[in-house]
Amino acid sequence: MRINAAYAARLLKEHDNFYILTHDHPDGDTLGSAYALCRALRELGKKALVKCPDQIPESYDFMWQDMPEQDFEPAFIVAVDIADSVLMGPEFEAIYKDKINLSIDHHASNNLEADYILLESDAAAAAEIVYDVVMELGVSLDPAMADCIYTGVSTDTGCFRYSNTSARSHRLAAVLIEAGANKDEINQVFFETKSRVYAALERLALDSMKMYFDDRLAVITLTQEMFHASGATDNDCDRISALPRQIEGVLVGVTLREMKDGNFKASIRTNGPLDAAQLAAKMGGGGHVKAAGCRLDGPLEKALEVLLKNVGEEILP
Amino acid sequence: MRINAAYAARLLKEHDNFYILTHDHPDGDTLGSAYALCRALRELGKKALVKCPDQIPESYDFMWQDMPEQDFEPAFIVAVDIADSVLMGPEFEAIYKDKINLSIDHHASNNLEADYILLESDAAAAAEIVYDVVMELGVSLDPAMADCIYTGVSTDTGCFRYSNTSARSHRLAAVLIEAGANKDEINQVFFETKSRVYAALERLALDSMKMYFDDRLAVITLTQEMFHASGATDNDCDRISALPRQIEGVLVGVTLREMKDGNFKASIRTNGPLDAAQLAAKMGGGGHVKAAGCRLDGPLEKALEVLLKNVGEEILP
Repeated sequence: MRINAAYAARLLKEHDNFYILTHDHPDGDTLGSAYALCRALRELGKKALVKCPDQIPESYDFMWQDMPEQDFEPAFIVAVDIADSVLMGPEFEAIYKDKINLSIDHHASNNLEADYILLESDAAAAAEIVYDVVMELGVSLDPAMADCIYTGVSTDTGCFRYSNTSARSHRLAAVLIEAGANKDEINQVFFETKSRVYAALERLALDSMKMYFDDRLAVITLTQEMFHASGATDNDCDRISALPRQIEGVLVGVTLREMKDGNFKASIRTNGPLDAAQLAAKMGGGGHVKAAGCRLDGPLEKALEVLLKNVGEEILP
Repeated sequence: MRINAAYAARLLKEHDNFYILTHDHPDGDTLGSAYALCRALRELGKKALVKCPDQIPESYDFMWQDMPEQDFEPAFIVAVDIADSVLMGPEFEAIYKDKINLSIDHHASNNLEADYILLESDAAAAAEIVYDVVMELGVSLDPAMADCIYTGVSTDTGCFRYSNTSARSHRLAAVLIEAGANKDEINQVFFETKSRVYAALERLALDSMKMYFDDRLAVITLTQEMFHASGATDNDCDRISALPRQIEGVLVGVTLREMKDGNFKASIRTNGPLDAAQLAAKMGGGGHVKAAGCRLDGPLEKALEVLLKNVGEEILP
């Protein structure tokens, strides 16, 4: 049953003993949404815990470190920012998949089963929706909640830079700053700081960048050797994938990542009219209009040959 | 005489034939402020021209390309985002220094002489103040004005990432988006795109980065050779200066830029409690708490020795 924020608040007021689930490989939005809601429910005197299928990275410690532990059996399960039960990870999926009472999300593709669904696909972040729920609960925003919600909105919008950023996102940011959100420290951690490992990988990645087709295609190659040399993991690759497309004049930016079996994953990013999903589909992959991916058989020369042939067909007059 | 936005609007309404001056090495805020005001004045049927002491970079073409030329003698001179007459460049300084009727600015240090001064040092951008003036003029915001003002605010706040970003900046962004500001294209140009020349310099810069004092000092060296190899100019250095401080754990990030005479300019950026201005002062320079600079005699080994000695005194227990 689809509901709105006011209805969700009424539901939450009527219940107690909440587990709030996040998705795996947790990010600022799923964690910020979950902890903001958890804090608001505790403010109302209820028991509430955030349950994350993976370990929470240290950079999010500020969201939960001051919260006392609570021990109880859950009576009402909320999922935040979880578009599909697969994103709960196998363990949580097995336990909670059929027990979700309320799902709060902003992914248009959401297909999670839940008794009640609060889905706003025009929200830039789930945290924008959680803010509305907190307001409907009648809880007044404290700086800790403001930190959580600010983190959700800022990380999902690339600090108000991505096209999903709306007037609503900015108005909410203003309210959060006035409520005491520690925006400077949060921005420092999530947008100004590079881990040493990431910085080392980025340097190798930029050194590997090659241009083709009159500089309209830029290709970065990440080899297993580079991962070993830098100590980087797959998690560090997302930020790298954004780099080739950033070069002026580039229409297609590709990051070829060597897997352990010697084959490659290609992350494809496009500028302008070129459809990344269509390009990826030609090579057996898929994705979105501006960001897509596919697998390419190794070795590198072979993967590159397939890539150049397919990109060339799209890019050459 | 210090005035507010309403007073400035009354002044502007009473006059005609405006020249609106920007500072040299023009940026998004001085140009966005100037063109937004120019458009608003023309909307009121007045004659107005923006006068910039330098050539305007192509990326700002969208601000003025649709505006018809006008030919007239100026009767009222407005300066926007100009903190000091030196920033007008020698030619404009000679002509306009003593003729400025209204100065609109957000630099606390502003010492420009003008009949009327509209100075708000808590504004993140001069464009925030110009917006208030346009509203007081009673002109309704069209998408072109919204583009100009959005560019001013977003470029001066690093797309809402820097600590000067306020609730006011965000609320204004919301209004501008609703007025039709082309935020996605603007963000793409100013925050997603690297020129090929900049990308080449960045690669060389990252390759040159060395760590000292248990990785608490990071130093990038830009040599004349790197400028020649990449085709980069001094203008490309500002973005480079931000890079060493971004590495996790770095307290002091320094960019040493070799000048044509073989000596060096050091750009110093600090994290945490370290005072960049104080550190720069020890080496004969100055600046702000988080960003300062000084000159160091070459060759590189000598400059580095002085830098390491002075940073070491601050950074070592």
